[in-house]
Amino acid sequence: MANPLVVVLASASPARLAVLRSAGIDPVVSVSGVDEDTLATTLADATPAELVTALARAKADAVAADIAAEYPDAVIVGCDSMLHIGGELVGKPGCAAAALGRWQAMAGGTGELLTGHAVVRLDHGVRTATASGAQSTVIRFSKPSTEEIAAYVGTGEPLQVAGAFTLDGRGGWFVDGINGDPSSVIGISLPLTRRLFAEVGVAVVSLWS
Amino acid sequence: MANPLVVVLASASPARLAVLRSAGIDPVVSVSGVDEDTLATTLADATPAELVTALARAKADAVAADIAAEYPDAVIVGCDSMLHIGGELVGKPGCAAAALGRWQAMAGGTGELLTGHAVVRLDHGVRTATASGAQSTVIRFSKPSTEEIAAYVGTGEPLQVAGAFTLDGRGGWFVDGINGDPSSVIGISLPLTRRLFAEVGVAVVSLWS
Repeated sequence: MANPLVVVLASASPARLAVLRSAGIDPVVSVSGVDEDTLATTLADATPAELVTALARAKADAVAADIAAEYPDAVIVGCDSMLHIGGELVGKPGCAAAALGRWQAMAGGTGELLTGHAVVRLDHGVRTATASGAQSTVIRFSKPSTEEIAAYVGTGEPLQVAGAFTLDGRGGWFVDGINGDPSSVIGISLPLTRRLFAEVGVAVVSLWS
Repeated sequence: MANPLVVVLASASPARLAVLRSAGIDPVVSVSGVDEDTLATTLADATPAELVTALARAKADAVAADIAAEYPDAVIVGCDSMLHIGGELVGKPGCAAAALGRWQAMAGGTGELLTGHAVVRLDHGVRTATASGAQSTVIRFSKPSTEEIAAYVGTGEPLQVAGAFTLDGRGGWFVDGINGDPSSVIGISLPLTRRLFAEVGVAVVSLWS
C-alpha cells in the first residue's frame, strides 16, 4: 500500500486554511518565497484567469520543491486571488487610503473575483502529476454609506485581502450576492480543488480527517 | 443616551452564530420553544418565502417575549431555512437514509435555498419596531459519486441541516456554485439582516465588537 498523502497548502492565508479545515482537511502550511509582483510583470499579456493561475502554479511549484524531502508523498495546492473590476485587476489595497478609495469606487457595482489554483502531486519525492485552473465568481457589492465604509476600513480587515473585501468576515454585510462558488471568493474553491485533486488521482473524501 | 442594545440570536444553529461572530457581532443566544412542524401545517397555503418568514417571525416573537425582562433594550433576530427543490420544500433530513435519498435526487441539479428573517426591537422591554423578509439563493449541486455521497452522509453532517448540505462544511466540496447571498445559505443573510436592522433604526456597524 502507498504511503498516506500529506496535503500541503502553499499559502499563508488564514482564510484558505479555515476553508479547508471546515471542509475536513487539515493541511500542512508551507509558504513560498515567490515574488508575486515581479512574476506578474513578466505576465503582462496574460488574461486575468491566466495570471492568477500562473501565480498559483509558481507558488505550488516552489513549495513542492521546498517540501519534497520532508513530505515525499504529498499533494500541494497553491492559490492566488484578484478582483477584476472596471477593467482593472486589483490585489490587496495594503493601506487604509487605498481601501477607502476602492470601496468608494466599487460600492453598488459588480466585480469578478478570480482565484487561480494549482495542484502538484509528489510520489516518493518525485512530481508525478499536476493540474490547474481558475474559478471566476461575480460579486454584487452593496452600497454602504460613507459612515459604514469608514467603519469597515477602520477595522483593518479590507487592507490585506484581494479586492478590499471578505465574504467570511465583516465584508459580508456589504456584499448583496454572488454568482459562482463562495469558497473561491474566500480564497480556495472546494469544488475546483476536488476536480483538480481527482485529475492527479486523489479522491478528496480519502483525505478527510 | 440610550442603553446599549443587546443582539439576541433566536436560533440554536451553530452555523448562524459563527456567521455573526465572524462578521463582528457576538450575540446572546436564546432558543424559542416554537413547534415548527405544527406551525408549518397551519401555513399550508403560504408560498415558500412566506412560510420561512412566518417561521422566523414566530421564533423572534417568542424569544422577544422570553428575554424582555432580562434584556429590555435588545434587537432580536430569528431565521428559518428550507430548500425548495423539485417542487418540494425540504428541511433537515434527520436520518442517514433520508440524507442519502436527497443527495441521490439532487446531485447534478439545482435548488433554491430560502431563509426567512425576522427582527424585533425592544426598548425598555417594549416592542417598538419589527421588520422581516426572505432571501432566496439558487444552489447548483455538483454530481458526487456514489462513494462520495456515502462518505459525506457517513460524516453525519448533512443529517441536521436544511436540504442535507452545508456551504461552510464538507458539503462545500459538492456545491459547484450559487447565485445569491452565501451567508443566507449558511443560515443568516448578512446583507438582509443589515437592511432589517436599519429598518428598526439600528446601524449594524454600531453593533460591532
